[in-house]
Amino acid sequence: MERSEIGLIGLGTMGAALSLNIAEKGFRISVFNRTVSKVDTFLSDSGPLAKRISPTRSLEEFVTSLKVPRAIVLMVPAGDPVDAQIAALRPLLDPDDLIIDAGNANFHDTNRRAAQAVDDGVPYLGIGVSGGEDGARHGPSIMGGGDRAHWDRVAHILEAISARYEGQPCATWMGEGGAGHFVKTVHNGIEYADMQLIAETYGVMRDGMGMPAAACADVFASWNQGPLQSYLVEIAAEVSAATDPATGAPMLDVILDRAGQKGTGRWTVIESQQVGAPVPVIEAAVAARNLSAALETRRAGEALFGAASRRLPDAALSLDDLEAAMIAGKVMCYAQGFDLLARTGTQYGWTLPMPEIAEVWREGCIIRSAMLNDMAGALRTDPDRNLLFAPYFADLVSRHHTALRKVAATAATHGLPVPALSAALGYFDSIRTARSTANMIQAQRDFFGAHGFERIDAEGQHHGPWGGGG
Amino acid sequence: MERSEIGLIGLGTMGAALSLNIAEKGFRISVFNRTVSKVDTFLSDSGPLAKRISPTRSLEEFVTSLKVPRAIVLMVPAGDPVDAQIAALRPLLDPDDLIIDAGNANFHDTNRRAAQAVDDGVPYLGIGVSGGEDGARHGPSIMGGGDRAHWDRVAHILEAISARYEGQPCATWMGEGGAGHFVKTVHNGIEYADMQLIAETYGVMRDGMGMPAAACADVFASWNQGPLQSYLVEIAAEVSAATDPATGAPMLDVILDRAGQKGTGRWTVIESQQVGAPVPVIEAAVAARNLSAALETRRAGEALFGAASRRLPDAALSLDDLEAAMIAGKVMCYAQGFDLLARTGTQYGWTLPMPEIAEVWREGCIIRSAMLNDMAGALRTDPDRNLLFAPYFADLVSRHHTALRKVAATAATHGLPVPALSAALGYFDSIRTARSTANMIQAQRDFFGAHGFERIDAEGQHHGPWGGGG
Repeated sequence: MERSEIGLIGLGTMGAALSLNIAEKGFRISVFNRTVSKVDTFLSDSGPLAKRISPTRSLEEFVTSLKVPRAIVLMVPAGDPVDAQIAALRPLLDPDDLIIDAGNANFHDTNRRAAQAVDDGVPYLGIGVSGGEDGARHGPSIMGGGDRAHWDRVAHILEAISARYEGQPCATWMGEGGAGHFVKTVHNGIEYADMQLIAETYGVMRDGMGMPAAACADVFASWNQGPLQSYLVEIAAEVSAATDPATGAPMLDVILDRAGQKGTGRWTVIESQQVGAPVPVIEAAVAARNLSAALETRRAGEALFGAASRRLPDAALSLDDLEAAMIAGKVMCYAQGFDLLARTGTQYGWTLPMPEIAEVWREGCIIRSAMLNDMAGALRTDPDRNLLFAPYFADLVSRHHTALRKVAATAATHGLPVPALSAALGYFDSIRTARSTANMIQAQRDFFGAHGFERIDAEGQHHGPWGGGG
Repeated sequence: MERSEIGLIGLGTMGAALSLNIAEKGFRISVFNRTVSKVDTFLSDSGPLAKRISPTRSLEEFVTSLKVPRAIVLMVPAGDPVDAQIAALRPLLDPDDLIIDAGNANFHDTNRRAAQAVDDGVPYLGIGVSGGEDGARHGPSIMGGGDRAHWDRVAHILEAISARYEGQPCATWMGEGGAGHFVKTVHNGIEYADMQLIAETYGVMRDGMGMPAAACADVFASWNQGPLQSYLVEIAAEVSAATDPATGAPMLDVILDRAGQKGTGRWTVIESQQVGAPVPVIEAAVAARNLSAALETRRAGEALFGAASRRLPDAALSLDDLEAAMIAGKVMCYAQGFDLLARTGTQYGWTLPMPEIAEVWREGCIIRSAMLNDMAGALRTDPDRNLLFAPYFADLVSRHHTALRKVAATAATHGLPVPALSAALGYFDSIRTARSTANMIQAQRDFFGAHGFERIDAEGQHHGPWGGGG
């Protein structure tokens, strides 16, 4: 039997889709799954691609079926299962066989596993794969991490299966160790924020303007023809237009408003705290998911305080205001996300390739959008500049922040929660304020803790005339 | 020579103040400092209290000078110095000698050191001490962690030196391991938020209303007579009223607006992410400090986008509006902080004593305030209820959220950054909204990732009619 160019362990939704993608691109692939019956089901569901798929029923058979030096993709649940799979696999492998964790790993785990692999003298890659099941099947965005030479061994396969933007593969090596999984983490943090901005504008339409879901669908579809063109706005239109087969009601109206999460938004916020990069729009999005999960508390809150009016007076806001606010909010969110990427890395030994990150996100991944191409251009011109200050985005924000203000102010007045839009505005107004109010904070810190402060008119650390503290 | 009841290592600002406090309360104390000359300086500065202070010039002399079983307070910089000090000290001690880390430790470090001490069979406490230099000298708030029996060995000293609220000592055992340092961490996170709320209202007065610092001082002083009565509002008045000896200008006006931080705000946010407790007001406060530190970026931002008008039309906001907004904002901030405390613990084996935490914060610490006594009462009645839902605070918020709305909306319109006040409003409007917009988020997650969603009208996990994902 012909040996396979690559192997994949873990035939869940993402692993199965990725395997079919690999086979479709002409590579022979061996597959294995702990629950062996899944291997058979998968094979019988693979249609004509089955001819390039080698099913295996034991780890030994799997390993033997691969060309040497081997390349093995793990698509098992993040966390302990990855460590367990590596531990089971390594004794069966040759020293130069490559393990590639393509799951949703915490990048700290990938850093640890990569360091262990370096100690052991064996090759290891951690790659972030975005695009959901459909992306994995037909072309995901791939963010690679690990030794560059190991990436190069499989780059031809990863580039072949990845999405393409104007012919350019959306698969890029980001740096050593967990760099790929870190970039994927920030991708997901931005995804949380993008989705929260969509949810907030949906809320203004639904509760503030009394629009039915179908009308919201039309708005999202029209936004998808403009600067907001993106996969998430596109599918906002799709889900808003969908009808529930069971009741005939708009699908959105029967979905419970309790959002789940798998950790990447949280990890993004934690890392932003570690490096001191402000990402308030992403923080607001994660907080909103946590608050959505507190359904009983919210019900008790509405019972106790009464529902806010929420309904806006006619003409208080236009749909154009809302689109403009979301454009400005989106720019802030991405400025924050890329700022975090730019600041992270030195402590892990990475120099993250800023323009390439924007480029690899232009197709295949969940946050793909027209704007990312403009971001790639801006970062290509100056990778160290906050995106907000790039001429294209500065102009976009200059034209749209008035609408963002109007939406935030109107929503605040009428009790519509728009925490991410408000955080975007707060970020903008803070970053354009040369003289902030942190002098008050420094004065207080010196008063009670003798921490000292800088002066506007002299170098060094100084203390106030309040003596030894209060 | 008479042996000392307790010893202290580390005669920095806080260690020196705490030593004098201990001596003043009638306990003989031995002191040691790595830079030995500091011991002499300290002794010669201690006045009549010197008679109860035993200066020592080596670790061996220090250890020998203590009654057995010994009790030794470490007041050395957090982090590696604590581990180094413990490593140097333990070989000189008997197995039942107690080490008490009273520094600003990360509670994860205290958990680790406490676990190590348990393994080694030696006693160890980590205690959070709040109140700045003045508090340490005359009565801090003390939050203890470690084995209860070890706490009981020194409780008489810690209670004697702590602040008192109506006769009750502000020194309480919070739980095993790092519980005390964790409670201190959240105290500091709330402190960040309290200070940011003050800074924002100061900004509205300064930039929105054109008020000089002295006028702001009068306002803070008057607020300090009402529901906002607190140490931080009191000192906001003090620092606003102070004059710079060098220039004769208001002190505040010559202090640079670049705020520092020592990590506790960040740790609070990180822990809130770990347990999924939304603390958006604290997050906004930490983000504001980070943005304040980006002085060059803010200057570039103002140059590029132009300063916002910031100045409010006459009568757009009243000082009463501002006070009411801060009252509402403060309640949200504390509701979030106590919610975080209530949710943390199980994973570390703690059951944090909620009412006692509010009680121990009523005096001595930086966030001491009149409102904390009401919070203690509310938590005494029902420690599991979100503070926002306690009748006293629900009433306070019901009466004041309209002003919070007005301030947030007006500030948004005129470009005054009030991220913490806005986050407080977003939290309130989210928690009183039974039907949020997270149905949109769940629909999208199911669309692209087949994550499934709950329905409002049926149990279980469901999928939308959009097939296998986009």
